[in-house]
Amino acid sequence: MTHRLTDLAAGLPASVPFVGPEAQERARGAPFAARLGANESPFGPSPRAIAAIEAAAAEAWMYGDPECHDLRHALAAHHAVPPEAIVTGEGIDGLLGFLVRLLVAPGDAVVTSAGAYPTFNYHVAGFGGVIHAVPYDGDHEDPDALAARAAEVDAKLVYLANPDNPMGSHHDAGRIARMLDALPDGTLLCLDEAYADLAPAAAIPPLDPSDGRVIRMRTFSKAHGLAGLRVGYAIGHPELIRAFEKVRNHFGLGRVAQAGALGALSDPDWLLEVQARVAQSRDRLAAIATANGLTPLPSATNFVTMDCGRDGAFARRVMAGLIERGIFVRMPGVAPLDRCIRVSCGTQADMDAFGAALPPALDAANS
Amino acid sequence: MTHRLTDLAAGLPASVPFVGPEAQERARGAPFAARLGANESPFGPSPRAIAAIEAAAAEAWMYGDPECHDLRHALAAHHAVPPEAIVTGEGIDGLLGFLVRLLVAPGDAVVTSAGAYPTFNYHVAGFGGVIHAVPYDGDHEDPDALAARAAEVDAKLVYLANPDNPMGSHHDAGRIARMLDALPDGTLLCLDEAYADLAPAAAIPPLDPSDGRVIRMRTFSKAHGLAGLRVGYAIGHPELIRAFEKVRNHFGLGRVAQAGALGALSDPDWLLEVQARVAQSRDRLAAIATANGLTPLPSATNFVTMDCGRDGAFARRVMAGLIERGIFVRMPGVAPLDRCIRVSCGTQADMDAFGAALPPALDAANS
Repeated sequence: MTHRLTDLAAGLPASVPFVGPEAQERARGAPFAARLGANESPFGPSPRAIAAIEAAAAEAWMYGDPECHDLRHALAAHHAVPPEAIVTGEGIDGLLGFLVRLLVAPGDAVVTSAGAYPTFNYHVAGFGGVIHAVPYDGDHEDPDALAARAAEVDAKLVYLANPDNPMGSHHDAGRIARMLDALPDGTLLCLDEAYADLAPAAAIPPLDPSDGRVIRMRTFSKAHGLAGLRVGYAIGHPELIRAFEKVRNHFGLGRVAQAGALGALSDPDWLLEVQARVAQSRDRLAAIATANGLTPLPSATNFVTMDCGRDGAFARRVMAGLIERGIFVRMPGVAPLDRCIRVSCGTQADMDAFGAALPPALDAANS
Repeated sequence: MTHRLTDLAAGLPASVPFVGPEAQERARGAPFAARLGANESPFGPSPRAIAAIEAAAAEAWMYGDPECHDLRHALAAHHAVPPEAIVTGEGIDGLLGFLVRLLVAPGDAVVTSAGAYPTFNYHVAGFGGVIHAVPYDGDHEDPDALAARAAEVDAKLVYLANPDNPMGSHHDAGRIARMLDALPDGTLLCLDEAYADLAPAAAIPPLDPSDGRVIRMRTFSKAHGLAGLRVGYAIGHPELIRAFEKVRNHFGLGRVAQAGALGALSDPDWLLEVQARVAQSRDRLAAIATANGLTPLPSATNFVTMDCGRDGAFARRVMAGLIERGIFVRMPGVAPLDRCIRVSCGTQADMDAFGAALPPALDAANS
């Protein structure tokens, strides 16, 4: 039989936003020596998070609380916002899907930057939305252009990551506030702050859930080192947050994941430690880049994007050379950002491995 | 601002399919003594699953393989089907959402039984589908009536749980095969086999992924005791399975969840042990029911549905009385099934607690 997919589903490509490093390892027949392509945290989760996961293992026969009460309340206390302003979910990816589903019907306009997060675009396409992409302004997303385009196309939703992925740049809170003021009425800003815990404080606007113009996306996958648990949350106006109840997978965040996230949140010292190690690693990555003739871009994240100084074809050869030598890295997908490679922060051993692999990868790319 | 939800989203109720036991515990101000309402497995996960989760905790900084390669291949070997016939996801709930999204556009007809799985209906409503519900035939879902209604309304999708929840009944494989033959061309059967591991072998049709008329839903939440990890999978025609790539949350199944499921799958002895304990517990539940004047229905699952012999209002009072006494149970939501309460299998201590609470709960319901 032919399955009667909806017209929308039938028209979607089966391509995926990201091929995982495990698939690359299977293809190359060997594991990576350093895993620096997904902006994970090789420093690992907090020992308290690990202990919480271990303790939850024997209790994994119980579904997680579908209201995520304890985690939401702990997050509310942590951020000094009401628990009604927070919804948890299966990573920011999962929450982006629910958000797009709530707002975007086929044909609705959505604005983002050309070269920004592919998974957001995947969700928009998946619900039939129409992406309008504006170029970066140099190595920064362009809030003015995003807001102007949103007005032009009457966008339901506009996406901005601050700090930005894949460039590592950031805007200060004042610029984000001005962007909000410039947005047309009825356009919601999805402010992806996955890297908030690693950014300068000045980059993060105060949290104000009474402001219905913006929803903030946060995650335990980056600084908290829990990408493998898949816990994200959104902070926004309680009315908007309540709407997620209409579409979310209520039991989707399991008991083990909730426990691990709570453990991580209870350990601010570990977060400080990670921040310090990330800063060290950023410096080391910048030094390696410079020593090899690449230009490290300033980073407000746990990765350093390096300008290889030539075109996308060259940077792709550099990336391929690194992968071939056992270093998992990624790069921006769109010109002119694709003159760069993107390298995550990691341990001393990770940095040593990257530092050893880069010169021959560059030689190979040059030859 | 008013958020510009889609017309579909704006029209959805904010009600949730299930209120969790944790919310009930918070409301009553005390924990439950026995957790017998969600058909979890109080016997716990396999020690190998526990060890795998513990071992994965320190590695939780890494995203899970988005292709779930190892788990899918292990499942393929276990079921003797090609890995291309399997998609994994965030529980059957998550997969039901993706399946409905793939097939059901606003106005499309979907058939299920009145009183069957509310979360399936939630997803259908969530994508604008129109539910056509046929009554149970006594305590069984009615395959003939489901197929006939599917033909009548040109259903894209028809849902049948075998064994059935909430009644615990089952049909044999031959009856399911005859239902498939009776389905109109272009109707897909979603066969929810969450309880397959606890059912008589005769209830489970052979797996045949070349048959595009049916998709089979399985889970690690029931017999495997991993409800708190949220791992489900679907087995179906590779063409249909491939379509999930268009809409699923690719990184949604985390590294810890994948590891735990693999650990569980590697321990068939534990499954045998759980099956034996479930059978014992079913007998004990039936004996307790009978001793108290209730009629236990035959069960092919890890719960026993008990006919309280009167109407829904009475059964609701019995359920309320049990909950008041610290026993978490649920009951069917729709008449005439709602003359019953539904009690999950559990440990000796769980059974003792239920056996002690039932007589006073019945007394209170009668008075």
